[in-house]
Amino acid sequence: MGYTIAQKIIKNHLVDGQMKVGEEIGLRIDQTLTQDATGTMAYLEFEAMGVERVKTERSVAYIDHNTLQSGFESADDHRFIGSIAKKHGIYFSRPGNGICHQVHLERFGIPGKTLIGSDSHTPTGGGIGMLAFGAGGLDVAVAMGGGAYYITMPKMVRVNLTGKLRPFVAAKDVILEVLRRMSVKGGVSKIIEYGGEGVATLTVPERATITNMGAELGATTSVFPSDEVTKSFLAAQGREENWVPVFADEDAEYDEVIDINLSELVPMAACPHSPDNVKTIDEIGPIKVDQVCIGSCTNSSYLDLMRVAAMLKGKTVHPDVSLAIAPGSKQVFNMIAQNGALADLIAAGARILESACGPCIGMGQSPNSGGISLRTFNRNFEGRSGTKDAGVYLVSPEVAAASALTGVLTDPRTFGDEIKIELPEHFLINDNMVEPPASPEEAKDLQILRGPNIKEFPNADPIAADISADVLLKVGDNITTDHIMPAGAKILPYRSNIPYLSNFCFAVCDEAFPERARKAGKGIIVGGQNYGQGSSREHAALVPLYLGIKAVIAKSFARIHRANLINAGIVPLTFANEADYDKLSLGDAVELTGIRACIENGKPIAAKVNGEDIPLVCELSGRQKDILLSGGLLNYTKESVK
Amino acid sequence: MGYTIAQKIIKNHLVDGQMKVGEEIGLRIDQTLTQDATGTMAYLEFEAMGVERVKTERSVAYIDHNTLQSGFESADDHRFIGSIAKKHGIYFSRPGNGICHQVHLERFGIPGKTLIGSDSHTPTGGGIGMLAFGAGGLDVAVAMGGGAYYITMPKMVRVNLTGKLRPFVAAKDVILEVLRRMSVKGGVSKIIEYGGEGVATLTVPERATITNMGAELGATTSVFPSDEVTKSFLAAQGREENWVPVFADEDAEYDEVIDINLSELVPMAACPHSPDNVKTIDEIGPIKVDQVCIGSCTNSSYLDLMRVAAMLKGKTVHPDVSLAIAPGSKQVFNMIAQNGALADLIAAGARILESACGPCIGMGQSPNSGGISLRTFNRNFEGRSGTKDAGVYLVSPEVAAASALTGVLTDPRTFGDEIKIELPEHFLINDNMVEPPASPEEAKDLQILRGPNIKEFPNADPIAADISADVLLKVGDNITTDHIMPAGAKILPYRSNIPYLSNFCFAVCDEAFPERARKAGKGIIVGGQNYGQGSSREHAALVPLYLGIKAVIAKSFARIHRANLINAGIVPLTFANEADYDKLSLGDAVELTGIRACIENGKPIAAKVNGEDIPLVCELSGRQKDILLSGGLLNYTKESVK
Repeated sequence: MGYTIAQKIIKNHLVDGQMKVGEEIGLRIDQTLTQDATGTMAYLEFEAMGVERVKTERSVAYIDHNTLQSGFESADDHRFIGSIAKKHGIYFSRPGNGICHQVHLERFGIPGKTLIGSDSHTPTGGGIGMLAFGAGGLDVAVAMGGGAYYITMPKMVRVNLTGKLRPFVAAKDVILEVLRRMSVKGGVSKIIEYGGEGVATLTVPERATITNMGAELGATTSVFPSDEVTKSFLAAQGREENWVPVFADEDAEYDEVIDINLSELVPMAACPHSPDNVKTIDEIGPIKVDQVCIGSCTNSSYLDLMRVAAMLKGKTVHPDVSLAIAPGSKQVFNMIAQNGALADLIAAGARILESACGPCIGMGQSPNSGGISLRTFNRNFEGRSGTKDAGVYLVSPEVAAASALTGVLTDPRTFGDEIKIELPEHFLINDNMVEPPASPEEAKDLQILRGPNIKEFPNADPIAADISADVLLKVGDNITTDHIMPAGAKILPYRSNIPYLSNFCFAVCDEAFPERARKAGKGIIVGGQNYGQGSSREHAALVPLYLGIKAVIAKSFARIHRANLINAGIVPLTFANEADYDKLSLGDAVELTGIRACIENGKPIAAKVNGEDIPLVCELSGRQKDILLSGGLLNYTKESVK
Repeated sequence: MGYTIAQKIIKNHLVDGQMKVGEEIGLRIDQTLTQDATGTMAYLEFEAMGVERVKTERSVAYIDHNTLQSGFESADDHRFIGSIAKKHGIYFSRPGNGICHQVHLERFGIPGKTLIGSDSHTPTGGGIGMLAFGAGGLDVAVAMGGGAYYITMPKMVRVNLTGKLRPFVAAKDVILEVLRRMSVKGGVSKIIEYGGEGVATLTVPERATITNMGAELGATTSVFPSDEVTKSFLAAQGREENWVPVFADEDAEYDEVIDINLSELVPMAACPHSPDNVKTIDEIGPIKVDQVCIGSCTNSSYLDLMRVAAMLKGKTVHPDVSLAIAPGSKQVFNMIAQNGALADLIAAGARILESACGPCIGMGQSPNSGGISLRTFNRNFEGRSGTKDAGVYLVSPEVAAASALTGVLTDPRTFGDEIKIELPEHFLINDNMVEPPASPEEAKDLQILRGPNIKEFPNADPIAADISADVLLKVGDNITTDHIMPAGAKILPYRSNIPYLSNFCFAVCDEAFPERARKAGKGIIVGGQNYGQGSSREHAALVPLYLGIKAVIAKSFARIHRANLINAGIVPLTFANEADYDKLSLGDAVELTGIRACIENGKPIAAKVNGEDIPLVCELSGRQKDILLSGGLLNYTKESVK
């Protein structure tokens, strides 16, 4: 039996476990990337590991999230990351150089390699045939230190592309179609592979749009083959030597096959408030538009912006629309500034923003109250734009540009003649905003620049023989990571300051919790079903760790958050009998006598509460057991590296 | 005896009073401008006046301050201003079109005309021979309604320019030299006129840099003659028909003359934390630089950015420096995007920001902790950058560019060959981002778009026969408008919401004040010497008005704030005997019996406090008396207009 693309790359990087669906496997990681909102913490963790120089083939630290700089914190973070990168062998992409995924694709990604990044859209690299995963900051730190990256061996899905996109139908419409069919949960524990004759009709930036937004399927990652198109792209980036062919075997077997005829697709939009709430532009109708934003790691390539510029040239953005455009990278920005396309965008009335994530992560350009915003981005969750009652539609650059001119949601096929934009034979190559690391000799004397907002990573202790602590919080079902650790433009610049963030921990559920935890010094949280669903942010485990949380007892856990708890050294326990949830109340003293021995020996645990024994379960892989006993992944890795 | 430029323009616009130094005069206003941070309030006030259509020759509403949009408030404000402009005969410069003063100079300013703007840097218009004043929003609203603008007839200062600037010495160095000599208080109650043979060597953008930053002298305004250079500039803007010659008479008399030989100037910087703390680059030495920002209404012209681009071309910004550049207008942005200069800036590693005020008003790009930031802006007050302990140096674009490359403060004369940039014969003219107002017929049906953050302007009642209220706050000497109504990036987006702003009123002095005032419903503030010094922001009077403050009793008042109190209908009273200040305490009940009659008849007033009579003084011009009796300038104007 043959292998899929993903299976081949996994096979080449397997350092632990067996390639059986559902089993934990460890992968050797060739490349890592970080962005600044998660990066400061990742590098604090890396520092704590005590590794002198990264052991990856290539690690790059990008600055693209906190670029508004509405206070000293972000500039301090940028300097911290720059200095730690220089010292420890990491390339540093300076602020202004662009969005991590776009720049990494252009300048660093290599087909057939593994990449993890502390950003959920790292699968963008799948556009050139990398196996690229979004991961927690600590996972990235471990990988930089030479440790393996652990995932559950996923199922394989083949998306079979036939035909060719018609004019004004875009790669964005392909991934919107996949989302429409599979839903935002459809990709969980799966890798989505694209194949079929239609693949050759898609350029690398178009493929990257599709793998990027595969994150919204909940997929482990998405990947395209590395073919002649990939080769030409890398050659145009002056990196033809990085090309290797990567294809699935003819007889590879997939758990699921989806057929999409590109010729049949029409312009679509993901309607508020979910990326899988997909309808055709025709079905939605010409709703009035207040704002259009073009950019983000999904749609900010040279190709995207050249198409938009061609559509806007000589015209004017509708008086009722604010059009904001953020180029994806310095390369893109520089090229459209050289060839006149940027002048066309400015002339038409576009508001040109710095090359960065910007409005996609709610950093600026929040729409008006109740406003309708068309965005070429990847997520349209309620409130993510910074305006709670705004309605965000996710669209292609073509739909965005057409609608910016008319003031209503517009099918770009009504626009006129086909716009043909070719990728250049040679991209403009100028890596002067990527600082290489210092040599190992020079690195010794380098100081890390640490601003006052950058606080130490909270360290967990190896799990104690017994835990004796009070219930400091009791919550219900479906608690999300946004309940545990809220995000948003006002908190994002503080991601390197766990003590400060701790003031907002569970604040939406119980404002008094942080203060109560600080007073108690240690404690236990009781949760219901599906505790910790949502994002992969490790801050949702690190902040409770900082507040002294030793264990969470819940009816059930969301998968990633449970892993994050273990990584942070917090014990995730489930009720043997769910009804026992009712026996625990806020303020109850809980005795977990002999918990260390129980974990060590894989025995059941009982919590003594109000004189009664409540049976609990803690199922762990051998590796997870060791992590908990060491006091978290960081301590575990330090021990393994030694 | 001949007239100065300013005296000529005043004479042509005098509608009230006599041109005697120190006397109140009323001027007819030809043009007005607003920006969005003060504009929402100005237009709420204009609305309250009930005037259908502006009576000025040209009124323009700009959006340039709150362009980050970290929440719905700013986009709502932009829509509000756009809709009210359209309805009432005002031109609307859309977000992205640039900084009010730069755009107004390019597209609307006319020599010999009067202009007031709700921004302290409105004197930029003096660069083309306008008499342009910064004013409170209510003053602008009154002018739009056809009312006069009142100032105290100022003294005349002549700055006599000889010689010619040497290469890499800039217009910025001229105004820094004036600041060095006169200090930030040196221009109070004076108009600064530039003359002499050196004038002809300066282009209009250079002149505008000088008049712009004349605001930092505390001057009433600054003005250049309108000569052949002005004519060429207007011709290049396609507006030669707007040109008229404006010169001082040969025998004009000045109260003060300053001689500056341009040939002798060297590159300078205003050191932290005052624009008059001026030293030469040589004196300061090669201090390490963390950030360089180029832009703002002072230095963001085509000429400025072309010079910077020429200096950066083919080079790279020093690795330790973050260089941010915000073009002053869409015209500038578009031209440098067309001619390749922008590509050179991007290639060198500049972070390109939207064409707006941005970092100059602390909206983004806050430097790192303790960072050294070189800025081509006009103010370097402590904390204004958003980073409290940063050190901001105000410099020319040439010093900024040279230092961005070396990483230390650098005299640009060490840079190499002279860079010659000529102004274009024809600027790129495209006013498609300026929305013209609707016709009077169309205007009738237009709705004003009002977001939930836009609250009503607080209305004052005509002064009551008697005032009986408690002392709700007692403060010491030198209370600034920043004590009364703090600013900053976190509060600026709320300038259209007086109720929300009221939560921060005097919060730095006494956090309980807003709540206490709300409970009391009415009250009196007691102050020391120089109460209300600092900025002209009318919010420092409107917010106390909203909180029910009826009178302020102080030892003395700062001039502009006293005028703002009167405009808001709050009675400014001074102690006849300063020692009586000690007789008033927080919570004391104060009886101002017969206060309306006392004001009406110009009689002394006594406050009865704890059984004792405290004599008070309230000196008012006839107009000020009428304003107070009407319950503020707005009510007064409504009555006058009827």
